[in-house]
Amino acid sequence: MRIGILTVSDRSARGEREDLSGPALARAVSERLAGATIAQTASVPDDRAQIAAILAHWADVLRLELILTTGGTGVAPRDVTPEATLDVVERLTPGLAEAMRGESLRVTPHAMLSRGVAGIRSRTLIVNLPGSPKAAVENLSVILPVLPHAVELLQEDPAAEQHH
Amino acid sequence: MRIGILTVSDRSARGEREDLSGPALARAVSERLAGATIAQTASVPDDRAQIAAILAHWADVLRLELILTTGGTGVAPRDVTPEATLDVVERLTPGLAEAMRGESLRVTPHAMLSRGVAGIRSRTLIVNLPGSPKAAVENLSVILPVLPHAVELLQEDPAAEQHH
Amino acid sequence: MRIGILTVSDRSARGEREDLSGPALARAVSERLAGATIAQTASVPDDRAQIAAILAHWADVLRLELILTTGGTGVAPRDVTPEATLDVVERLTPGLAEAMRGESLRVTPHAMLSRGVAGIRSRTLIVNLPGSPKAAVENLSVILPVLPHAVELLQEDPAAEQHH
Repeated sequence: MRIGILTVSDRSARGEREDLSGPALARAVSERLAGATIAQTASVPDDRAQIAAILAHWADVLRLELILTTGGTGVAPRDVTPEATLDVVERLTPGLAEAMRGESLRVTPHAMLSRGVAGIRSRTLIVNLPGSPKAAVENLSVILPVLPHAVELLQEDPAAEQHH
Repeated sequence: MRIGILTVSDRSARGEREDLSGPALARAVSERLAGATIAQTASVPDDRAQIAAILAHWADVLRLELILTTGGTGVAPRDVTPEATLDVVERLTPGLAEAMRGESLRVTPHAMLSRGVAGIRSRTLIVNLPGSPKAAVENLSVILPVLPHAVELLQEDPAAEQHH
Repeated sequence: MRIGILTVSDRSARGEREDLSGPALARAVSERLAGATIAQTASVPDDRAQIAAILAHWADVLRLELILTTGGTGVAPRDVTPEATLDVVERLTPGLAEAMRGESLRVTPHAMLSRGVAGIRSRTLIVNLPGSPKAAVENLSVILPVLPHAVELLQEDPAAEQHH
């Protein structure tokens, strides 16, 4: 499974703040997801068009199976990662976002303010995770058990026209 | 309550696989929903335009009170039942989908990958259920207690302009 | 925090029914949210364009920090508060609606039929609450702990470009 990890943060993109979330996610994925390889990592500012452009490139040209974003899911004016993701996904997977928020809500009520979405562009699953390394890895842990099956189904040959 | 049950499956539509989910839902509804009659049943392939056309016809021309779909809610490339449903509904009822997924999540983490939606077209409530007979009936059971009230409210005379 | 409370109800807007939900929300907010002032209250009929126009005016011209609506979130044909809200918000905060429904579901299965949404227009957070005074205050209680932080983040200077 070829994975891209996109850190969305004005400060990280400008090199003013060390990106801790991206590496934390890369470590968690490498250790806990059999057969996973980190194919791409990048930092972008909180800019809707730039975020959407990278997501589309990684899906359409590099054909990554999974893209995890971290950051930009809050309610501050600059937080637009969900909107950029909605710009590029063709089909939503609302259950992933609901499950992550539902689980986070047991830890802190502030999970309610996480606006992350998840969806599919062509054969690529894109999932928004929060910006803090701890919350990002906690949220990833919630969906980790279903990621291999999701990615496998996404690679199915549509001509096979199987029933699900 | 006049109900339509739409099985979405390439194989069932081609007659290559017996449709078990549609009949299972028809049985569950007949046994457990007082006054329910199965007015329509059909099988369609996983084709967005065909699914949307049947939903619109059953709502606009046949004026069914409730339409249950089964199948096509997963993440495989051919699964487009939620998109077809979003094409035709005018108002979403997100709480029905959230409640079904939340309850299914207690049984299996794979419930996260169920992309079903629910919404209203004119006076018709449309609900996406999973493709397996067992999961379809389990999901239906979650929303069954509120269906009579929902359908009753939907038939209200708008001219009465009551407050809810 | 300057707050607007919008009661959506044909009967209240015509003066045929006393608005109990608006005052109940005003009381709850004043007592339980430090520094809150009720800057605006109004009653509008269940009319999508009228609801949207008031929400936009309160956000764009009066620059309220928080708008709570009550009513029009059900499934009856006249219930269009969520659609009016979707017409004006630029970014959704799905976690607020999910948390309120999830909590209400513990009280009654009918919470599934509540179609309320929450989102952001510019610097204003807009949250749909149910129409009954009891349910409106109960739903508000669920999100009350995170409202001060949400409003504070929304007022952030985008030029500061902080990471979240």
